[in-house]
Amino acid sequence: MSARPENYPTHTLDHLEDPEHGIRVPVTRITQDPAPSGAENPPVTVYRTAGPGCAPEEGLAPLREDWIRGRGDVEAYTGRSRSLEDDGRSAVRRGEASAEWRGARREPLRGLEGRRVTQMHYARRGEITAEMRFVALREGCDVELVRSELAAGRAIIPANVNHPEAEPMIIGRAFLVKVNANIGNSAVTSSIAEEVAKLEWATRWGADTVMDLSTGDDIHTTREWILRNSPVPIGTVPIYQALEKVNGDANALTWEIFRDTVIEQCEQGVDYMTIHAGVLLRYVPLTANRVTGIVSRGGSILAGWCLARHRENFLYEHFDELCAIFARYDVSFSLGDGLRPGSLADANDAAQFAELDTLAELTARAWEHDVQVMVEGPGHVPLHLVRENVERQQELCHGAPFYTLGPLVTDIAPAYDHITSAIGATEIARYGTAMLCYVTPKEHLGLPDRDDVKTGVITYKIAAHAADVAKGHPGARDRDDALSRARFEFRWRDQFGLSLDPQLAEQYHDETLPAEPAKTAHFCSMCGPKFCSMRISQDIRDTYGDMPAQERIALEGMEAKSREFREQGGTVYLPSRSVPARP
Amino acid sequence: MSARPENYPTHTLDHLEDPEHGIRVPVTRITQDPAPSGAENPPVTVYRTAGPGCAPEEGLAPLREDWIRGRGDVEAYTGRSRSLEDDGRSAVRRGEASAEWRGARREPLRGLEGRRVTQMHYARRGEITAEMRFVALREGCDVELVRSELAAGRAIIPANVNHPEAEPMIIGRAFLVKVNANIGNSAVTSSIAEEVAKLEWATRWGADTVMDLSTGDDIHTTREWILRNSPVPIGTVPIYQALEKVNGDANALTWEIFRDTVIEQCEQGVDYMTIHAGVLLRYVPLTANRVTGIVSRGGSILAGWCLARHRENFLYEHFDELCAIFARYDVSFSLGDGLRPGSLADANDAAQFAELDTLAELTARAWEHDVQVMVEGPGHVPLHLVRENVERQQELCHGAPFYTLGPLVTDIAPAYDHITSAIGATEIARYGTAMLCYVTPKEHLGLPDRDDVKTGVITYKIAAHAADVAKGHPGARDRDDALSRARFEFRWRDQFGLSLDPQLAEQYHDETLPAEPAKTAHFCSMCGPKFCSMRISQDIRDTYGDMPAQERIALEGMEAKSREFREQGGTVYLPSRSVPARP
Repeated sequence: MSARPENYPTHTLDHLEDPEHGIRVPVTRITQDPAPSGAENPPVTVYRTAGPGCAPEEGLAPLREDWIRGRGDVEAYTGRSRSLEDDGRSAVRRGEASAEWRGARREPLRGLEGRRVTQMHYARRGEITAEMRFVALREGCDVELVRSELAAGRAIIPANVNHPEAEPMIIGRAFLVKVNANIGNSAVTSSIAEEVAKLEWATRWGADTVMDLSTGDDIHTTREWILRNSPVPIGTVPIYQALEKVNGDANALTWEIFRDTVIEQCEQGVDYMTIHAGVLLRYVPLTANRVTGIVSRGGSILAGWCLARHRENFLYEHFDELCAIFARYDVSFSLGDGLRPGSLADANDAAQFAELDTLAELTARAWEHDVQVMVEGPGHVPLHLVRENVERQQELCHGAPFYTLGPLVTDIAPAYDHITSAIGATEIARYGTAMLCYVTPKEHLGLPDRDDVKTGVITYKIAAHAADVAKGHPGARDRDDALSRARFEFRWRDQFGLSLDPQLAEQYHDETLPAEPAKTAHFCSMCGPKFCSMRISQDIRDTYGDMPAQERIALEGMEAKSREFREQGGTVYLPSRSVPARP
Repeated sequence: MSARPENYPTHTLDHLEDPEHGIRVPVTRITQDPAPSGAENPPVTVYRTAGPGCAPEEGLAPLREDWIRGRGDVEAYTGRSRSLEDDGRSAVRRGEASAEWRGARREPLRGLEGRRVTQMHYARRGEITAEMRFVALREGCDVELVRSELAAGRAIIPANVNHPEAEPMIIGRAFLVKVNANIGNSAVTSSIAEEVAKLEWATRWGADTVMDLSTGDDIHTTREWILRNSPVPIGTVPIYQALEKVNGDANALTWEIFRDTVIEQCEQGVDYMTIHAGVLLRYVPLTANRVTGIVSRGGSILAGWCLARHRENFLYEHFDELCAIFARYDVSFSLGDGLRPGSLADANDAAQFAELDTLAELTARAWEHDVQVMVEGPGHVPLHLVRENVERQQELCHGAPFYTLGPLVTDIAPAYDHITSAIGATEIARYGTAMLCYVTPKEHLGLPDRDDVKTGVITYKIAAHAADVAKGHPGARDRDDALSRARFEFRWRDQFGLSLDPQLAEQYHDETLPAEPAKTAHFCSMCGPKFCSMRISQDIRDTYGDMPAQERIALEGMEAKSREFREQGGTVYLPSRSVPARP
């Protein structure tokens, strides 16, 4: 099976190798043209997911299968019997799902009775798994950092034993900030083929995990196609499918129906699940006078259930049973923020922070079972209140990875909420959020199409990368510097090749200066051919560049500045003034 | 002449009136549908520029003419004689500019000999001008705040006496954050008609000022068309035209040619000019080993000039003469940051901060002439170094308004630099930057077209607004709250009408749910008709909303939470932890 198409002619699929352990990590190698002086510019290697292949009906090779079985603590078993109801009422009516998965089917695996097969469990026992080696190579860090962060709960590797196709990746604040893309059909629109195409597309542009939020027909079969084709961890919100099984009547939900749905998804290979166990009965009234009430779909299902039955949330009451299930498949919790604010007006309110207290309690309970946990965060938050969200979550949840949706920093720009939320996302990631859930231009308005998915992913790659740079993550700025050097040397093709979206950058350039020679020409459309600021800079460099800094500065009578220059080193001036409020 | 078309059927042009002083300030009135309960939703009034009319060949009415003449300190005079060389070599060759301005021509005005006619001058004398009343009404603040901020130099009203068409606006950190849009032809592409259309278009979407950065042919005539049609202040970079007059040979530039160009533009009505007087000879070597050298076009022209002649920058040496000229027309300085960083690698370096020291010195010198000043800032800056830029500028320049380009927080996303820069722009505005220069998706790649101008302006309206909200600017969140209420009540038309881009929001919505009834339907495409989180929230409100908060909370056994709720009020929890560096 061939790998996915490359994004640009200067890109090739390469691998980082750990031959001793049989590990090969895919990377994108971006070659560069030489400098005008003839000096070589070394290739730049960047993180990538190898991505789905070209034959969705076959699925991907089970990369992790030998690692999983090699640990000797799982068993294959017959599995829960499949029911057409798993695919919803229209499948029952038709007598079949509309696009049955016909690729390879494996018997599901689970941990042997009493065994915990989670990455956290191995990490806590001091064992280095192949998955840990894979992510250490991928992140360019020591494997011991991976192990210790997993053991402490500050990072997770979402890796269900039934999703051997996934290339291991890590989510934690000591590692690169990750991006999740949501896909999924809904009651209103879209097909299985479209969802698989969106998965391939989102991964191609850099999504690190994908959530399948399907709520319509063929929900089980859609997920099977997605999992068998996904090289990234897949997350779901199982309450969506459970609700389908009770014909959309939230009051009819039971723990048993929910548990059965969770097991169905564990056996399919879902890597992490959003569980809204923090929506407690006593928190529901706190939302009554909000401007936008409860905007989380899962949160409102459970609030409705609590309200109708006047009973405590069954997910909270059965949380330990859930942990026991997750521990046998290595499914990670994504503890849902069902009471997140849906507007600036509701940000950081009593309902939101009450739920966060409970999520912190649940984090500790999951860790008792060696189950991996991340915690979801908002939402809509004005910029000055964003930082508090991550610092409070990190403190209360003892560093469990934070996974936020945006947040959006204004409510007035529907159709541009990828931007309103990228602003908040960069801020929250800068202070320690480990993964960002993308927002597309269609947020609040409709379901994203292919273009929206791409725009959402790239916008969030920007946010994640800008946060990596701001955090001083080792090597994060290398690609920026390479692109800036290409810009200074008018290596246009390298500017495109090093960018997040080479085709679009080239297309925009060509709209103004379409001729092929322009790509190597020593000018651009901003200044035109007869004047060029870059050329003057080159003259300055030719004049002064080879002089030792001291001589260069002394030459122009810059003694004072020279001292400042030397004294500053890399350090920065940080006055403690803030902006006075309006008088 | 009719006003520009409205952006949406629920928008109308309205006016805030000060009949005593004959002042009418245009605003957009956005009407809303009633709530489902039948309760009225009051209209929302938002800041707007009335905008150019529909007949560009006539130009706008001279709104300010009586105010200017009424102060009795200006004289009309013959003015500098016009030369075809003002329009460049091809105009000379042809014997005419390509689209001569044929609308009304007024004799230029200037301050009487020895008189300073700047808004700062009146403010310092304690005089309230009509322009100050106009902006106070526009900003919804006391006119004394306007006067005192102008007098202190912390705000400017760019308002050349020869641009009476402009609706006065204020730039300062105590006021709404403003957005500038750049337009202008270049040596490579575009026409006068296109530039006037871009002006109308940028203003329609919310640009508060426009800079004409033309560098190609017909530079004088293009500017005349723009000024006569511009309801917003117009800024320029006069060195661009001066360079045209010496056939692009920077070494041939002289103070005399520059001064003549400045007077030409003062007489036309340019409201603020970028002057790169801080690019000193001794700073030039500091840029030699930068990754991207000097990226400011004006900065590199002057650095090249200094380098070639080995003399001090003539703009610095003649700065007081420039001040004397500006004082007679009320042209504001925009002190250019010719040494701004063009890449993350060069941010906050010795060259940049050396120039800022000089800009601070020049600010004080301009103030001695009662000339209004703002100071330009970068550029490309990693997020963690952004705040330092504005705090340092505010401190050194005694609160003179800061006007920044972005900054871009990563270099790796050409074609998305409206987004990379909006992230930095929001951060820098939050800490006190008064005006943001937009960046379009074509930045670094080519010249923006109509769509790019719109995308750039709206992206920057988001950044400016998010900063206003984060600063706690009075009333800034009102529009967010109104839109969020419309969202909660499924008033789709009001969600569109209250958004920054009503048409696009409606179009995106209609792509998924095109039928007209969907716009009032009580569901959306995210959850579909059979389940709706908003409906559950309404049930919660119906159950608890009318109870006093205390009873509501007590009901669910929330004594502890209730205390927290009461104690919190609007205050927030701010732990002092920061993210630990990677171990």
